[in-house]
Amino acid sequence: MTKHFERELDVLKRDILTMGIMVEEAINQALRALSTRDADLAEQVIRGDEWVDARENKIDEECLKLLALYQPAASDLRFITAVMKINGDLERMADEAVNIAERAASLASLPRLAVDLPFDEMQGRVRTMVKESLDALVNRDAALARRVCGADDAVDELNRRNYRTLLDVMRRDGESIERAVMLLSVSRFLERIADLATNVSEDVVYFVEGEVIRHHGLHDPKTPPPSWQVSR
Amino acid sequence: MTKHFERELDVLKRDILTMGIMVEEAINQALRALSTRDADLAEQVIRGDEWVDARENKIDEECLKLLALYQPAASDLRFITAVMKINGDLERMADEAVNIAERAASLASLPRLAVDLPFDEMQGRVRTMVKESLDALVNRDAALARRVCGADDAVDELNRRNYRTLLDVMRRDGESIERAVMLLSVSRFLERIADLATNVSEDVVYFVEGEVIRHHGLHDPKTPPPSWQVSR
Repeated sequence: MTKHFERELDVLKRDILTMGIMVEEAINQALRALSTRDADLAEQVIRGDEWVDARENKIDEECLKLLALYQPAASDLRFITAVMKINGDLERMADEAVNIAERAASLASLPRLAVDLPFDEMQGRVRTMVKESLDALVNRDAALARRVCGADDAVDELNRRNYRTLLDVMRRDGESIERAVMLLSVSRFLERIADLATNVSEDVVYFVEGEVIRHHGLHDPKTPPPSWQVSR
Repeated sequence: MTKHFERELDVLKRDILTMGIMVEEAINQALRALSTRDADLAEQVIRGDEWVDARENKIDEECLKLLALYQPAASDLRFITAVMKINGDLERMADEAVNIAERAASLASLPRLAVDLPFDEMQGRVRTMVKESLDALVNRDAALARRVCGADDAVDELNRRNYRTLLDVMRRDGESIERAVMLLSVSRFLERIADLATNVSEDVVYFVEGEVIRHHGLHDPKTPPPSWQVSR
């Protein structure tokens, strides 16, 4: 039974890595569709989401099967529940890639907006975050996972820069508003992907160290803030 | 041991319900801060997020403890893993409430934008979705959970209406742009909360019926779309 269990754990590891690689690819293609104004490529990303959804379901089933059949304890239990969460986060990243692709498809039919945004840099950073968070998972590398969490700030800053740039563009040229709002959305979707990669990394640290770093350093207040009790 | 297990399951149910009630309250207060231009109330919502984060960690720990100590099977196993996912979704809803509160705080210091948006109706619908999805969880009511999934379309439509309204406002009045972009964000955050309530309901159906309705009706393609294999 232990041998079977080890083998099935390996399959699970491979499957979650493959899921990560495909999600990364969806993000890259969505951004390529945006920069090359390629509505067909955007359409492919949108259709490809079915595949990601099916994989998410499959991985969830694998996790439940492992929990039910082998009733693992300690580190294996933490690994499997971490994979269940990470699986959901990867699927949400793919949803954000679809959101980007939808904006890319719309923008491809409109005149190009002359504005220089650091999407390439954001993509590079986000891509590294996604990749390293999954490397950290399979290599049980909590130090790497912590570095990924720290990388989120730079993406947030790029998103804020885009916000300021695009607001200026809109103020200067009323004709630009619809396109600028779409680009603002693209920037937010990228920033959300970085947030999701941070979530993945936090779950990796927890799996490796048995420590919740999500919302770390918090006290555990026994009661919610007084104001929340007013209306109930 | 079974008696202990039953008792701890009851505690878990109570805790996830309490989490849901507090998240609902955070959403309500964030929107009240927006409509009454109350920056102090917005600040309370932002600070209150610590409590939600601490609760999320606590519920996660409870779930892991139950899995490790009692190694539950079948329906109990599905319930506990569903609670782990729902817990994460509720925490994300609270994050969206914080996002709304941040916009409310910024807008409170700017002149009021004269635009009529159906935030009350959105809030009512979202609130019902959150409440009913949790009722469905504790009452094992898959039919109710399915109705919640169906309610998402109306919120999406209200969000699209806000998008059109706010784009018109921005085009007519360049001075409105920053405020309109913030209100556009508020509308999207509400729409995301409805999406998260839909996720919760899907997990409830799965727990009750053992059936994945997330991404239902999909084939399970063995290979991703050909285009995704190009660049790797």
